[in-house]
Amino acid sequence: MQTLKVIKIGGNIIDNDDALQQFLKDFATIKAPKILVHGGGKLATKLANQMQVEVKMIEGRRITDVDTLDIITMVYAGKINKHIVASLQAHNCNAIGFSGADGNTIVSDKRPINTIDYGFVGDVKQVNTEALEVLLNNAIAPVFCAITHDTNGQLLNTNADTIASELAIGLSKLFKTELYYCFEKNGVLKSIDDDNSVITSITTENVKALISDGIISDGMLPKVNNCIHAVSNHVQKVCIGKPSMLFDSNTKHTTISK
Amino acid sequence: MQTLKVIKIGGNIIDNDDALQQFLKDFATIKAPKILVHGGGKLATKLANQMQVEVKMIEGRRITDVDTLDIITMVYAGKINKHIVASLQAHNCNAIGFSGADGNTIVSDKRPINTIDYGFVGDVKQVNTEALEVLLNNAIAPVFCAITHDTNGQLLNTNADTIASELAIGLSKLFKTELYYCFEKNGVLKSIDDDNSVITSITTENVKALISDGIISDGMLPKVNNCIHAVSNHVQKVCIGKPSMLFDSNTKHTTISK
Repeated sequence: MQTLKVIKIGGNIIDNDDALQQFLKDFATIKAPKILVHGGGKLATKLANQMQVEVKMIEGRRITDVDTLDIITMVYAGKINKHIVASLQAHNCNAIGFSGADGNTIVSDKRPINTIDYGFVGDVKQVNTEALEVLLNNAIAPVFCAITHDTNGQLLNTNADTIASELAIGLSKLFKTELYYCFEKNGVLKSIDDDNSVITSITTENVKALISDGIISDGMLPKVNNCIHAVSNHVQKVCIGKPSMLFDSNTKHTTISK
Repeated sequence: MQTLKVIKIGGNIIDNDDALQQFLKDFATIKAPKILVHGGGKLATKLANQMQVEVKMIEGRRITDVDTLDIITMVYAGKINKHIVASLQAHNCNAIGFSGADGNTIVSDKRPINTIDYGFVGDVKQVNTEALEVLLNNAIAPVFCAITHDTNGQLLNTNADTIASELAIGLSKLFKTELYYCFEKNGVLKSIDDDNSVITSITTENVKALISDGIISDGMLPKVNNCIHAVSNHVQKVCIGKPSMLFDSNTKHTTISK
């Protein structure tokens, strides 16, 4: 089995074009089959302000009403995705942009309304690998934005970390998959302000204590849960850290394992 | 050689979602390898107004400055393209959205500045068929928006009619290609207000007289020139008319031939 790297880059890299271009230049050098998943950064909020569309948040989470879904589709699948694909081509990396609707790759269910109506938000139900397999075997890198569909014509806003983990899990029947979450810190930190306090290893054993001790909390909690979900479902390797962990084995980072 | 249909739909179908859905439902039934190319409709102008970006026109042509290119990328490659792809999936037609940057499929040169600076507008230089061939042979329909790239990371606004004809020409070495321009009229009309005055046949012979007599003029002139260019370059069949010409052989339309 070939190794497939699924690499997710966060908003902070998207928002800084110099950092993005450096990352894409490095990404282009990866020889193995590879998939890039990108978050949205601050551009969607900026466009919402320009269009005078109110950004609705409940408990720190964006509510995706119909206007917000339009904005997200325009910014994530349009502006950011095409900018990344065109940049990768400039670095001689053949790439094709994807939402989950493209190739019917990622099917999700609209999140049911319990206490909060999140609007057009999708929870991943199924990954279809046929189209991706064909492209990966032809040295073309799929580039995913954080949008999925319900197979009835409805696009849905979906967490980019989840898209990355579900792709890695779904493709693990065809490839030895590795999952990398790249962001601006060295990994999961014991002290959020100390980039040297990296927890180098998180396992399905020690993760519960780290959560109950409050060391893994807030935004890091769903990310780590995605990692645990991935290593528990046939993903061979899961890492969190700076993009340089992909290219320099001395880079500090967090490895999540079973 | 298999037959490949390249079908371009104009803005008027994009602007009316009932008409668009009816078309996509019909398009999904086409068994042959097929490519859809879509124009932009009025949504880009609407978004420009919302964002208070001035729409600059010279001699009826949009000038694509950097803000306009952003808007076009968001609307064409984002909102419209993903809406079409998700709708096709709902009709059980597997599709993947494309700009010319995706798969490095359509390379263009930024139009040189002579008397008018059109801005970020690209004239098609090359069609690369590798990625398209793989998808078409796997029963996946590429859906193109009217954006290309220069291989140096720059996206460029490109006429959708030209994209359709260049795709049909480029793929004619692999398929017997047919090109269909679908819009709201029955074809090229003798009298613009009389939808029954269809010119059923235009040839490389009679086209010059039709142009010099002023029967083919204005917006129809570049469209017919695209058709003549296609039939002169290995495209087997070129038609202009209503979408129903694809599904009902009795539908009046214009056929362009050598």
